[in-house]
Amino acid sequence: MKQLKLGAFLSVPGNHLAGWRHPDAVPETDMDFDWYMRLAQMAERAKFDTIFFQDTVAVAGSDALKAGDLTRTRLSRIVKLEPTATLAALAVGTTHIGLIATATTTYNEPYNIARRFATIDHISKGRAGWNLVTSQTEDEAGNFGLDQHVEHATRYERAAEFYEVVTGLWDSFEQDAFPRDKASGIWFDRDKMHFLDHAGKHFKVRGPLNVARCPQGWPVVAQAGSSEPGRELAARTADVVFTAQTEIEAAREFYADVKGRTARFGRTPDDIKIMPGLTPVIGRTEAEAHEKYEELQTLLPDDVALAALDRFTRGIDIYSHPLHGPMPDLPEANSAKSRQALIMAMARKDNLSLIQTARAVSAAQGHRVVVGTADHIASEMEAWLKAEAADGFCIICNHYPRPLQDFCDLVIPELQRRGIFRTEYAGATLRQNLGLKVPGNRFALR
Amino acid sequence: MKQLKLGAFLSVPGNHLAGWRHPDAVPETDMDFDWYMRLAQMAERAKFDTIFFQDTVAVAGSDALKAGDLTRTRLSRIVKLEPTATLAALAVGTTHIGLIATATTTYNEPYNIARRFATIDHISKGRAGWNLVTSQTEDEAGNFGLDQHVEHATRYERAAEFYEVVTGLWDSFEQDAFPRDKASGIWFDRDKMHFLDHAGKHFKVRGPLNVARCPQGWPVVAQAGSSEPGRELAARTADVVFTAQTEIEAAREFYADVKGRTARFGRTPDDIKIMPGLTPVIGRTEAEAHEKYEELQTLLPDDVALAALDRFTRGIDIYSHPLHGPMPDLPEANSAKSRQALIMAMARKDNLSLIQTARAVSAAQGHRVVVGTADHIASEMEAWLKAEAADGFCIICNHYPRPLQDFCDLVIPELQRRGIFRTEYAGATLRQNLGLKVPGNRFALR
Repeated sequence: MKQLKLGAFLSVPGNHLAGWRHPDAVPETDMDFDWYMRLAQMAERAKFDTIFFQDTVAVAGSDALKAGDLTRTRLSRIVKLEPTATLAALAVGTTHIGLIATATTTYNEPYNIARRFATIDHISKGRAGWNLVTSQTEDEAGNFGLDQHVEHATRYERAAEFYEVVTGLWDSFEQDAFPRDKASGIWFDRDKMHFLDHAGKHFKVRGPLNVARCPQGWPVVAQAGSSEPGRELAARTADVVFTAQTEIEAAREFYADVKGRTARFGRTPDDIKIMPGLTPVIGRTEAEAHEKYEELQTLLPDDVALAALDRFTRGIDIYSHPLHGPMPDLPEANSAKSRQALIMAMARKDNLSLIQTARAVSAAQGHRVVVGTADHIASEMEAWLKAEAADGFCIICNHYPRPLQDFCDLVIPELQRRGIFRTEYAGATLRQNLGLKVPGNRFALR
Repeated sequence: MKQLKLGAFLSVPGNHLAGWRHPDAVPETDMDFDWYMRLAQMAERAKFDTIFFQDTVAVAGSDALKAGDLTRTRLSRIVKLEPTATLAALAVGTTHIGLIATATTTYNEPYNIARRFATIDHISKGRAGWNLVTSQTEDEAGNFGLDQHVEHATRYERAAEFYEVVTGLWDSFEQDAFPRDKASGIWFDRDKMHFLDHAGKHFKVRGPLNVARCPQGWPVVAQAGSSEPGRELAARTADVVFTAQTEIEAAREFYADVKGRTARFGRTPDDIKIMPGLTPVIGRTEAEAHEKYEELQTLLPDDVALAALDRFTRGIDIYSHPLHGPMPDLPEANSAKSRQALIMAMARKDNLSLIQTARAVSAAQGHRVVVGTADHIASEMEAWLKAEAADGFCIICNHYPRPLQDFCDLVIPELQRRGIFRTEYAGATLRQNLGLKVPGNRFALR
């Protein structure tokens, strides 16, 4: 039977914008590394394929904060640990779970990124993954010398070239390049070292990378963009796609579309694992689950909800629209294209007012929230798996640690009982657990 | 009594270019993280203040390798783990020792560096240090889009501004900026968040950093440049100076000069700890120690020694000079200024031939080698400490793990017996163990 892939998106201190205010919540999970380690180990005990960290290289909402908007002092996602250093540290306290983090192609150099993820793959003995993104927010531009954010098409063009350089650098050495032979004094085999000599529009990189070939050949490459250029890049290059999908039909369309594009790039549909986000709200009964959800919503003031929505509504001033009037149309913007489309689709579908939209966005952050018993949630996951709407899910919790613990204790056993999730790790590397091929070395194949 | 500060420079697989060929050597220490961890824990058991990783963002000798020079396939320092990820991972398996690594200001963005070292400081609970350098080699330029290496003065100008931005970002939040108060819903105190708004010649960075204030206030800042602009920058900004000093008189001059410059910047001589490199070759008798050194030299072929020297002799072709003739003069070059001066001084002082210079460089890599009994080595260290030639030393081993283990087992107890080295860690943070002040927050002080 086809098995689910599961990622734990450690969205500390919680995905729901008021989740941290819940009596069970530990809000210090945003900066306290010991909590990061406990959460990673919790996910590993439950046999998750991987943990995953999102990233932005700015304090979200910097513009508004600078302009004096004090509402944002009630938004919890301001600081956190830098994800690549965190992955490396988590590798030491875990043994099987994958370690995926976001690093932007917009404000990094490919040599530095290739090197760091290759190193994490060595430290973790084959469990590293890089989520390749383009930077989405104006807040980030101001930290890297730019007054304006880089345009969407240019970002994707740079991202595609960045990917070529990074993977090319990962091929710098073949697996057996280093005999380190004391008798002859030969340290390495020159024929198994390769210069990349890349010269493109955005980058000029000679190589070789100063890290030996990774245990996984290459770290796993994940992507999260759902726009047209994002789908195209994913079909060509991604091993894993994290995506926000709230409706099964739209998810099936996305799944079929991305997998359908792979053949053009000499790949198979199985070479990509599609993992939508899913936020569980678990109760012993359906009623209890809905009460839990409503309890979180009562912790969320309207003005905080509006501030959260405002992050995704560049181009219009939501504060000039009536709270209880219909959600105004969002113009096509330069940032976070597909997120805006999802918000509009949700608002129109349920005929939501502006404030209802804001409250739903604050609760879900664009992802699918499933409220119910463990059996209900497992059934939903199974249905999506069987309908080819998902290969698995990225589990996002409203606060930490309790909802993750509940998912591990209540939903995982139900998935195992249904025979759609492992009870033990089968592979030693993340690629093996995800059922992904080890990439060949482009130079050795010549 | 004044106490020595000790750093373990984990120069895997060994500082002596043929060290890896020694029967006791484990050459895999360059890529095997488990060995990095064992070496860090070994240094911690011996109460070293810190470990330290050097860094270059290239395979050394790429130019020559590309041109077909196969001698370099016998040079062992080709690949290694990226140091910042490695520090983060080592934080998890250690509790007291400092964790310092090099990151270049030439090919990084200050926001990314500020963030990563702040994160390592959080993960390690106050043990991180950043060794600020400018990139020295032409090999590196080719990996970052440049055909030619950046000029020395420009690199230092950028480095100085980079430091201002990084430390400014470390002041983004005050220590108590995050009440995370569930009752009121207030996550953070806007008055304790600070925008940097830096706009200089090389960087334009708004801030704030998306990491809370570090346990140490700022991670420790180390520097290694010994040129005129290097000394000036160190006097103004460094907490620790790693330096190559082979003669006590020159070391005293350097020590007095750098400390003497501090007053101009409102600092005291005690605010900087000066730690020259020292490579011990330890025997039970002086004769045994010298035999050990000669044993290493027999493992070093002449052509490998010449290739090693060639790394530091940009501007002349050493291969066009007679092997047994005098060491030719080195012109002033753009890269590694002070290293070239040291090599010339050593060659002239002992009237060395070209090949003798090459063999000495390969053995020492510019650092001081002390050959003798544990008592002899401890006496040398004590003499430098008392003569104000050093506040401590950075111990560099010819191969790993044995020479480091010998230093810990034989020299450390002798230093402790003399009352010049700790028997237990007194502080919880690296700053505390090094006797350094916690920096104030520039915004809070206004």
